[in-house]
Amino acid sequence: MPLHLEVPPVKDPELRRSPSPPPSPSRAAHVTYNDKYVVVYDFSDTDYETATNEFTALLKNLEATGLHVEVRPGYEQTILLFVKAPSALLGNRVYKLRVRDWLYGVTQTRPPGNKYTIVPAWYEAEDILSMDHLVNWPQSMGGAGITPGIGQWKNVKAIYPMHNDKVNQALLRGLSKKLLLGIEDLDKIRDLFGSKVSFYFAFGQSYSAFLIFPAITGLFTWLWLPKYSIVYTILTVVWCTVFLEYWKVREVDLSVRWQVRGVNKTKTNRPEYKYEKVIVDKYGRTIHYSPKWKQISRQLLQVPFMAIATVALGILISAVFAVEILISDSYDGPNNFYLDYLPTVLLAVLIPYISSYLETVAKWLTNYENHRTADNHEMSLTQKIFVLSIITNYLPILLTAFVYVPFGDQIFPWLEGHIVRFAPSIGHHLTEIPFRLDSDRLRHEVITLTVTGQLSSFFEENILPLIKHKMSGWYREYRRAYTKDTILISMVTDDQDEAEFLEKRRNEATLEHYNVQDDIAELVLQFGYLALFSSAWPLIPLGFLINNWVELRSDFAKISIEHQRPAPVRADGIGPWIVSLEILVWLGSITSASIVHLFSTDGVLSGGWSTLPLTIFISEHILLALTAVARVIFQRFGSKELRRERSEQYARRLSILEEIEEHKRDGEHIGPRERERRKSLLIAGNESFWTKQLEDGASAAAGMKLITLARKWEESNGELKKKQ
Amino acid sequence: MPLHLEVPPVKDPELRRSPSPPPSPSRAAHVTYNDKYVVVYDFSDTDYETATNEFTALLKNLEATGLHVEVRPGYEQTILLFVKAPSALLGNRVYKLRVRDWLYGVTQTRPPGNKYTIVPAWYEAEDILSMDHLVNWPQSMGGAGITPGIGQWKNVKAIYPMHNDKVNQALLRGLSKKLLLGIEDLDKIRDLFGSKVSFYFAFGQSYSAFLIFPAITGLFTWLWLPKYSIVYTILTVVWCTVFLEYWKVREVDLSVRWQVRGVNKTKTNRPEYKYEKVIVDKYGRTIHYSPKWKQISRQLLQVPFMAIATVALGILISAVFAVEILISDSYDGPNNFYLDYLPTVLLAVLIPYISSYLETVAKWLTNYENHRTADNHEMSLTQKIFVLSIITNYLPILLTAFVYVPFGDQIFPWLEGHIVRFAPSIGHHLTEIPFRLDSDRLRHEVITLTVTGQLSSFFEENILPLIKHKMSGWYREYRRAYTKDTILISMVTDDQDEAEFLEKRRNEATLEHYNVQDDIAELVLQFGYLALFSSAWPLIPLGFLINNWVELRSDFAKISIEHQRPAPVRADGIGPWIVSLEILVWLGSITSASIVHLFSTDGVLSGGWSTLPLTIFISEHILLALTAVARVIFQRFGSKELRRERSEQYARRLSILEEIEEHKRDGEHIGPRERERRKSLLIAGNESFWTKQLEDGASAAAGMKLITLARKWEESNGELKKKQ
Repeated sequence: MPLHLEVPPVKDPELRRSPSPPPSPSRAAHVTYNDKYVVVYDFSDTDYETATNEFTALLKNLEATGLHVEVRPGYEQTILLFVKAPSALLGNRVYKLRVRDWLYGVTQTRPPGNKYTIVPAWYEAEDILSMDHLVNWPQSMGGAGITPGIGQWKNVKAIYPMHNDKVNQALLRGLSKKLLLGIEDLDKIRDLFGSKVSFYFAFGQSYSAFLIFPAITGLFTWLWLPKYSIVYTILTVVWCTVFLEYWKVREVDLSVRWQVRGVNKTKTNRPEYKYEKVIVDKYGRTIHYSPKWKQISRQLLQVPFMAIATVALGILISAVFAVEILISDSYDGPNNFYLDYLPTVLLAVLIPYISSYLETVAKWLTNYENHRTADNHEMSLTQKIFVLSIITNYLPILLTAFVYVPFGDQIFPWLEGHIVRFAPSIGHHLTEIPFRLDSDRLRHEVITLTVTGQLSSFFEENILPLIKHKMSGWYREYRRAYTKDTILISMVTDDQDEAEFLEKRRNEATLEHYNVQDDIAELVLQFGYLALFSSAWPLIPLGFLINNWVELRSDFAKISIEHQRPAPVRADGIGPWIVSLEILVWLGSITSASIVHLFSTDGVLSGGWSTLPLTIFISEHILLALTAVARVIFQRFGSKELRRERSEQYARRLSILEEIEEHKRDGEHIGPRERERRKSLLIAGNESFWTKQLEDGASAAAGMKLITLARKWEESNGELKKKQ
Repeated sequence: MPLHLEVPPVKDPELRRSPSPPPSPSRAAHVTYNDKYVVVYDFSDTDYETATNEFTALLKNLEATGLHVEVRPGYEQTILLFVKAPSALLGNRVYKLRVRDWLYGVTQTRPPGNKYTIVPAWYEAEDILSMDHLVNWPQSMGGAGITPGIGQWKNVKAIYPMHNDKVNQALLRGLSKKLLLGIEDLDKIRDLFGSKVSFYFAFGQSYSAFLIFPAITGLFTWLWLPKYSIVYTILTVVWCTVFLEYWKVREVDLSVRWQVRGVNKTKTNRPEYKYEKVIVDKYGRTIHYSPKWKQISRQLLQVPFMAIATVALGILISAVFAVEILISDSYDGPNNFYLDYLPTVLLAVLIPYISSYLETVAKWLTNYENHRTADNHEMSLTQKIFVLSIITNYLPILLTAFVYVPFGDQIFPWLEGHIVRFAPSIGHHLTEIPFRLDSDRLRHEVITLTVTGQLSSFFEENILPLIKHKMSGWYREYRRAYTKDTILISMVTDDQDEAEFLEKRRNEATLEHYNVQDDIAELVLQFGYLALFSSAWPLIPLGFLINNWVELRSDFAKISIEHQRPAPVRADGIGPWIVSLEILVWLGSITSASIVHLFSTDGVLSGGWSTLPLTIFISEHILLALTAVARVIFQRFGSKELRRERSEQYARRLSILEEIEEHKRDGEHIGPRERERRKSLLIAGNESFWTKQLEDGASAAAGMKLITLARKWEESNGELKKKQ
């Protein structure tokens, strides 16, 4: 059944118009994009027979889908399968993807064509997404069903598209020269990596642009206003909520621009999704049914998990914190110098251990939640881990602000007392000097944590993987050269003309999978620092602004260089992160108010504890009111793109109706025949009431008579009254 | 240009399907409904010439629109114009209204037909709405442009459809026999009065059904649990938020069922709406533009107005409250008996005076806000008045709970002291006995206000207007019989066959316009009592349940008997009342917690003031968390009707695509020719990489070779290692 290009003529005008391609620089280009996929098969853990069977099945599935496969050796015991779709097959998949979007209501105009239609992609990611579906979707949906790491394909290590190095580099150069990312840059990122990744950059860009305001007010505050300035705090909290409400509208705007609004409806099941039964509904859709209450009740397990995790982490961090303070502030016994490092070591050893245990539980829980789509699964997991990281990151500052500084002089002597009592050998080394309470301690804590936090996360995220990757590359080369140990590539010589290409792909095969949620989580965590603690150190936003300028660009470089190219998954926003941001703004209104209340003007506890709840209550509710106002205003202005979409729908529908004009005023044109017809209808209506004033002018005459009667009566009555 | 019935054949399958009529018992009926309108023209305040001119213009406009008019005398100096549309005109308007809905995206299927199409209405209100548009819409949109009370038509007192007495009575009988209103009853109300009114009944019905739960727990609490029970309070607050989240989903469900989702977009301008310029956009729509920021900034004036009104009313009520307490509790001077009534008199005189002044300001402000649609205007005004009534209704209870009972023993002696100092003549009559503080006082206040409030509002709303109306009718008859004073009808004798009909219509002409917002406001106010104060008296929900059973039915009777039939305006829900309800639930979590904290177990102030903020903080935030959980759960279950609508869209679109089947797995069917064609394409692609394993089985062979190589190397290496 050969695919061919003829499209039968379409009669209906709604169908005649093809959907407008999303605005994009690559719109005009009618080219074949980088439409190749790589499948990495690793047979190091399996015996010869299984390996050949698995490999044959893999090849058979791919070729049965109509894909052409070239096989080349990879590093170690891996085989790289280079997969390419014939352009007719790919163009047809692109067309069908558009039809699917239209069927599920993501787009509103039917793409013209029939099942043989072949269309060129509007942008690179569209081709790659279809390619991804060809390789990854189940066979029942026309894919090869290759699901890396799962079931039959547990030895398939990865499937990924190849990086488009030229475009990557050109775009990176472009971004580095710009102060702010424009909408065209975001479009280009969408064209390259799909909307899910580009939403991260769009969010980062909007957030950074908004950061300019608190950066300026922060600098001003730092230079001229007192510490813990109330004006700066109010401005920052208001700024947070304004930014958030702005972003909500912006997100809708972009999702309409990128034609991905409601795209989640079209997502397929993740392979691990368990369903109770398969239903084919009356519209012919196959639904993998699993009861809603079951999913919801499983997801509610998050609540106790989070509660327990919070308490466990909280106790641990508080304990380490207490030990740290005790040692640094009042211990002067033997090994003073080494003991100073004890808490740091404890933290370094314990926190990752506990965290990773909690993450294991979170992973198990997320699996148990049985999300239908991979997106939901990934999001749910990232959110859980985010809550854990929130606690590890913010709790030390919260303890400093609300426990150590205000109550240190009561708690620590009491603690020391107990230590002296139960462990006199240590106890007698504790100094008896009173605590040096200090509002600057909070400021120092905030500075240390934010600055080192940003720097170390930058290092961990960008530098460390690069070093690790380079090192392992060098080591591989070393082994290849000296021990002939990297097996396949040492036994097979690449063709001259492909050597460079294969080098690159082999390198890509060893790279990590990219999870955009991690990057969003980082920005949200940063936003949290700003919302919660910037009153303690107003230079925070300036630092974040600079950091983000670098970060957005280095993240692009990171995706291009340190990760496998992500499949261009589509999303219509940053999803539940909005909720996380809302909660952080809320918490911010509480902590900021408390910090200013306790620490402002003349140092420690100027506001006193007794009035703190009142301050919190007022601040929190003013923020909520402001949020409501900001929301109303932004929603009133609304999304420009959404209005455009609605107008286009109106125009499209109107064009169908072209022949229908506005109702002509009939009365003036009714001829005598039509009038007679109407009269006869009224008479036939058998309601004598409606026939009494049928003749022309009869109603008018009746009305005039009534007015005249009334006036005459009034006159005579008036005269009557006068006479009396 | 005669209207005719032929509909040209439609080719496109999407257009061939007519939109499904909304589920409704009258669906099958193909009848002409009660499609007549009455215009009331009153010329009592104008001279003869103006009267004849106005009347002639009125008649000309109506007839120019193609309407037939019968003129009859009304009471006093009014003329009733009975307006009827020819069935062809009306059927065409009904069709055009459906087209308009489709153009603006309210419905999703194009009604088949062209500009001459005539369709029967699906239900009565659809006919009447088209009739309303014929009389009321501006001439540029094909109406007669009769806007009662405005500009040229200031002497047109009302335009209204006639009541359908038979259907009204049948429905009322049906409702009285039922314990709960079913969805068919709501459908019937929609068929009769339009969706805006039926949403009130739907909300009242859902709310009353939910009331059963707190009514039972309340009765149980009253019988067996201590006063100010914490268990009952928690259950009630949780119930409030669950109900609200349920209603939000229910509202969407109904709006889809009644095909009115997003219907606000189609609403026309109110005649008073002021715009800066008229824009005709590129889709040919006329837009009356007025800048958004101007509207928003004007609407923000509500905030200071509300603040000032709250303070003014608050001070007034507090003062009267203080005087009342002083006199009733501690004054025993002369005129004791009469003075007891002083505060009541003060309240009775002052509150309505101040309220009506504030209402005038609210009206002016709402006009100034310059809303585009009549709906928005009406809603904005009702909301302002609602806030005022909230204050007058709830403030006395709040003062009792949080000022009088806890602080009375400090405030009143202090007040007495001042009175003694400045007005010794009164002062020496004040008793010196200490205050009788009493937690039961709050309970009594709540009982009094809720019970009398419900009873008196029932009386004011249902009985009083009936009596007033009957009285004025009797008076009119009396004058007609004895003084020949009701002018027109005393001079003109009705035809025998129309006498009864005219009697009814004249009666309707004297009735009030119905504003459904007032009835919703009453329910919301009631819900507020429940959310805020039911912890003080757990029988509140039971009382409200009984009240609402009567209320919903008597409201239907009220619309049928005491009001002009409302134009069947459409709405897609209860609009901003949702926000009012949310705020009330929120306030409820605060006041309920405070009341229980202060009054529970052993009477007054058991919890103490110092821990009150903490209680409030915890209660408020637990409620917010619960609200979030309830929202997630209800949204997960989602709206059944919305899913149905989406599925129908899918099915409709799929039927267009019938010819497109799922992609057949090509690989298995590719013939040798197709394979050759693909090969040649790959070779022509000029990328030698993709041509190396073109032959059948080449890729497989290459892979096998690699696996074999690796295994051999491993074996020999393993042996090598063994040897070493």
